[in-house]
Amino acid sequence: MAKEDKQFVTEITSQSEDFSRWYIDVIKKADLMDYSPVRGCIVFKPDGYEIWEHIQQDLDRRFKETGHRNAYFPLFIPESFFQKEKDHVEGFNPELPWVTEAAGEKLEERLAIRPTSETMIGHMYERWIQSYRDLPVLINQWANVVRWEKRTLPFLRTSEFLWQEGHTAHENEAEAREETMKILDIYRDFVENFLAIPVIVGQKTPSEKFAGALDTFSIEAMMKDGRAVQAGTSHYLGTNFAKAFDIKYLNRENVQEFVHTTSWGVSTRLIGALIMVHGDDRGLALPPKVAPKQVMIIPIGPPKTRDEVVGRADELFAQLKKAGIRVGIDDRADVRPGWKFNEYEMRGIPVRLEIGPRDMENGVCVLVSRISGEKKVVQQDQLVEEVTAMLDQVQQEMYDRALAFRESHFYSVDTLDEMKANIEEQRGFTLAGWCGSEACEDAVKQETGATSRNIPFDPQVEKELCLVCGQKANHTVVFARAY
Amino acid sequence: MAKEDKQFVTEITSQSEDFSRWYIDVIKKADLMDYSPVRGCIVFKPDGYEIWEHIQQDLDRRFKETGHRNAYFPLFIPESFFQKEKDHVEGFNPELPWVTEAAGEKLEERLAIRPTSETMIGHMYERWIQSYRDLPVLINQWANVVRWEKRTLPFLRTSEFLWQEGHTAHENEAEAREETMKILDIYRDFVENFLAIPVIVGQKTPSEKFAGALDTFSIEAMMKDGRAVQAGTSHYLGTNFAKAFDIKYLNRENVQEFVHTTSWGVSTRLIGALIMVHGDDRGLALPPKVAPKQVMIIPIGPPKTRDEVVGRADELFAQLKKAGIRVGIDDRADVRPGWKFNEYEMRGIPVRLEIGPRDMENGVCVLVSRISGEKKVVQQDQLVEEVTAMLDQVQQEMYDRALAFRESHFYSVDTLDEMKANIEEQRGFTLAGWCGSEACEDAVKQETGATSRNIPFDPQVEKELCLVCGQKANHTVVFARAY
Repeated sequence: MAKEDKQFVTEITSQSEDFSRWYIDVIKKADLMDYSPVRGCIVFKPDGYEIWEHIQQDLDRRFKETGHRNAYFPLFIPESFFQKEKDHVEGFNPELPWVTEAAGEKLEERLAIRPTSETMIGHMYERWIQSYRDLPVLINQWANVVRWEKRTLPFLRTSEFLWQEGHTAHENEAEAREETMKILDIYRDFVENFLAIPVIVGQKTPSEKFAGALDTFSIEAMMKDGRAVQAGTSHYLGTNFAKAFDIKYLNRENVQEFVHTTSWGVSTRLIGALIMVHGDDRGLALPPKVAPKQVMIIPIGPPKTRDEVVGRADELFAQLKKAGIRVGIDDRADVRPGWKFNEYEMRGIPVRLEIGPRDMENGVCVLVSRISGEKKVVQQDQLVEEVTAMLDQVQQEMYDRALAFRESHFYSVDTLDEMKANIEEQRGFTLAGWCGSEACEDAVKQETGATSRNIPFDPQVEKELCLVCGQKANHTVVFARAY
Repeated sequence: MAKEDKQFVTEITSQSEDFSRWYIDVIKKADLMDYSPVRGCIVFKPDGYEIWEHIQQDLDRRFKETGHRNAYFPLFIPESFFQKEKDHVEGFNPELPWVTEAAGEKLEERLAIRPTSETMIGHMYERWIQSYRDLPVLINQWANVVRWEKRTLPFLRTSEFLWQEGHTAHENEAEAREETMKILDIYRDFVENFLAIPVIVGQKTPSEKFAGALDTFSIEAMMKDGRAVQAGTSHYLGTNFAKAFDIKYLNRENVQEFVHTTSWGVSTRLIGALIMVHGDDRGLALPPKVAPKQVMIIPIGPPKTRDEVVGRADELFAQLKKAGIRVGIDDRADVRPGWKFNEYEMRGIPVRLEIGPRDMENGVCVLVSRISGEKKVVQQDQLVEEVTAMLDQVQQEMYDRALAFRESHFYSVDTLDEMKANIEEQRGFTLAGWCGSEACEDAVKQETGATSRNIPFDPQVEKELCLVCGQKANHTVVFARAY
C-alpha cells in the first residue's frame, strides 16, 4: 500500500475502538456535514444533503400515490397555541426557542419556532373543515423544525433538523387508525427497501409516546454499536387536538362531531441511521437507491494509453448516465488509482468501475462491489444490464447483512439481572416481558440505561412474565439503549 | 346561465373595478392560500404549494445542469454576523425577528431568523475554501426566510416566505460576473418559458441594489394593473462578503487572495406574479407547464348514458395520465357541467376536456382552451397528441398575450411632468433618461410613487436627457410602481 493510501485509511477510527469517534470521523471525512456556529445546528453539505433529496423524492412519491398533498404552514407558533393541549405543552415546552422581538419591537405574544406543527395545523383545520364532505384531509409538509436539545449529535439529534410531518383528519377512529397504520407501513417499506435498513415495527409504550397522542407506533432500527434509532413514527391522536382546537364537522347524520387526527414523520436523522447501519472501518457505505453517486468510473493504466482509456471511460460514463444511473468519473492524471479506490470506498459509492488498456482490447471492464469487494469482469456492450444487476445485488446484500447483524444481536431475557449483564456485555436489542407498569419500565431504564423501544407487532417470542416484577407480562417489549 | 353559475361568477371582483380586491378574491376562491394567525405569514394550501413544487422542480434541474448542488445552512444567524458587513446590516436590521430565549434560558447572543444567508454561508465558506482547487463553490439552498414586513400581501410580500438562494465563490471578478449573468439568464429563460411571463432584464440602480452587493441585476415583470414585480435577482458581491468573513484562498501563483462571491434568488412571490400576469375576471389562469392540473375531464350528458360516458372518460384519463399529462376528472353526478366549467376556469386549468354520448359514438371529444375559449373537436385515438398540442398552444398564447399587454402599457417620457401625468392616467412601465444622481431618482419616487425598476440591457429607445434635471442621461431606466 502506498504511503498516501495508508495515511488515508488510518484517518478513520475503527468501529471497535470507538464507535462514536468512528461516526464523527466518517461524516467529516466523507464531507457530509460541518458544524455551524449555532449551538446544535449543523450544515448539510452537498453530499449529505443529496442523500436527503433522494429520501424526499422517494417518500414524496409514496405519499402522493396514497392521496396526500403537500402544503406549507408558518414557522412561528403563538405561545397560546401550546397551552391548548396539556400533554403537548409539557412535552415540548422545555425545548422551545422563542422569538420575543421583531423589527425593533417587543412582540405582544412570544412566538415559538415550530418543534412540530400539530397546533398550527389544528388551528387551520378548524377553519377548513365544516362537513364530512371536507374529509379526509390528507396533508404533508416538508419543513425545518427546531428542538433546543441539550446533547446533540450530527444528523441524529440536532437543534434544527429537516423532516416531513403528515397531518390528517378523518371522520372516525377507524379511518384515522387505518391511516396511522398505512403510513407506518409506508415507512417500513421505504426504510427497508430504499435504505436497506431492517426495522422492528411496533407500538410505543405510553411513557414513550408522542406528547398529545393516544397511540404512537414506530419503526426501530439497530445501529452497528447495538443502539437503537427510532426511524419513523406514526401517531393516532384521537380527538385530543380536535378538542383543543375545536375541529368539528357535520357528520352524515347532520350532527356536529370532532374529527380524529393523525400525525407522522421522518427526519434527517435517517441519514445518521444510514451511516451507522451500513458504514464500516473503510468509511461510508450507501445503498444504491439512496446514494448520490451509484457508480464511480476510474480509468487506469500507464500514461501512454491514458487518452485512449479516458476516451473509452467517457463513453461508458455517457452510456450509464443515459440509462439513468447516477455515475461519476475521476480521470485526474495526478492522483493514483489506489488513492481513488480508497477515496470512493470511504465515500460509500456502491460500485466502482475500473477500465484499463487490456480491458479495452478485450471489450470488457471491471465492476467492484463496495460492500462485498466482489470483482466482476463484464462485457462493455452489456454494461447497463451488468451495472444494474450489481446495484440490485449490493442493495439486497446490504439489507441482508444489516438483518443478519440485527438477528445476531437480538437477545431474549427473563429477568432484570439477566438484562443488566446482557446490556453491559453485548451490543444489541433485548426482548423481555413487561407487566405494563411505568414503575417496571423506569426500573429498566435506571438499571440498564435501556429504554423500551416498542412493543413489536411480530415478536420472535412471546414472553410470559415481567422482567422486573415477575408478574404476568402483558406485553413483549424490545429494550435498547437509543440515540 | 343557471343561478348557481351566475352567483359563482359574481363572487370575484372584476379587475377593472378593484385590482387588489380581485387578487384576494381569486387566491381565496381558487384555494391557493389562507391567512395564518401569525402576522404577515400565510398558509400555502395544496393548490398554491403545488405551483411552488413545479417551480422548484424545473429550476432545480436548471441549477444542477449548470453544476450547482444543494446544501442546507442553519435558520439562525448570530447577531454578530450581521455587524460584519456594513451595508448588509443597515439593509436587513430593520426587518429581523430575534430569538432571545431557548429552552427556558436567555441566550448569550441573540439569534436572528435568516432573512438571507450571505453571512452564515460566508462564515462556512471561510472554513471550506483554502486553495484555488476548492473553487468555484457553486451551492444553492431551498429554504424559508423571514423579513418582518410592515405591509404584507399574500405571496408577493409575506413575513415568512420560501425561496432558493444561490451562493457561489470564484477565483476572480470575471468568473463571478459570468456566474451572475448565467443565473440571470436562467431566471429569464425560466420565467419567460415556464411561467409565460415576459421580463425586462437589466441592472438595478445603486439605491435599489441588494444590501452588500456591488451590482444587482433583476428581471422585472408587469402585472395587469401595470405595476412591477421583481421576479428574480442576481448579485455580484465583489469581495465585500469575502472581506467581512475573511474568505481567502491561495491562488495559482501561491498568493492569498479574497474570493469573489455571488448570490441570487427567486421566491414564492413568483406565485403572486403568475396570478397577476395571467388571471382575468373569470379567475386564475395558469400556464400549462406550471399548472398542478393541466387538463380537467368533464363527462356530460343525460343520466341514462352516464355510466357509459364516465367509463370512457376514465379511459381517456388513464391514457393522458400514462403520457405524463397532469390530468383530473370530475365525474360527480350531483354537480352540473356548467358549474364545473366555471369552477375549473376559475381555478385556471389550461384545458378542459368534455365528452358526451354523441362524442362517444363519433370517437371524438372536445378540448376547450382556458385562455382563448377555443373549442376543438379531436379524435380520441389522437388524444395525447392533440392535448399536448393544445397545451403548447396555450403556453405560447399566454406568453404572447402577456407580452402584448406589456408592450401596450410601455411608455417613453422626457420630463418628470410627463411622467407624473402618465403614471396617473395610465397603468404601465415608463422608460426615461436618468443622469445617474440619487437626487433625481428620489424626485421621481416622491413625485410619482414610481421607483426605478432597472436599467434594461436592451431598452426600446436610448434616452438622451435626464427626465428630472435635464442634464445628459447616463442611463435609460424603467420606472414603475412596484409590489
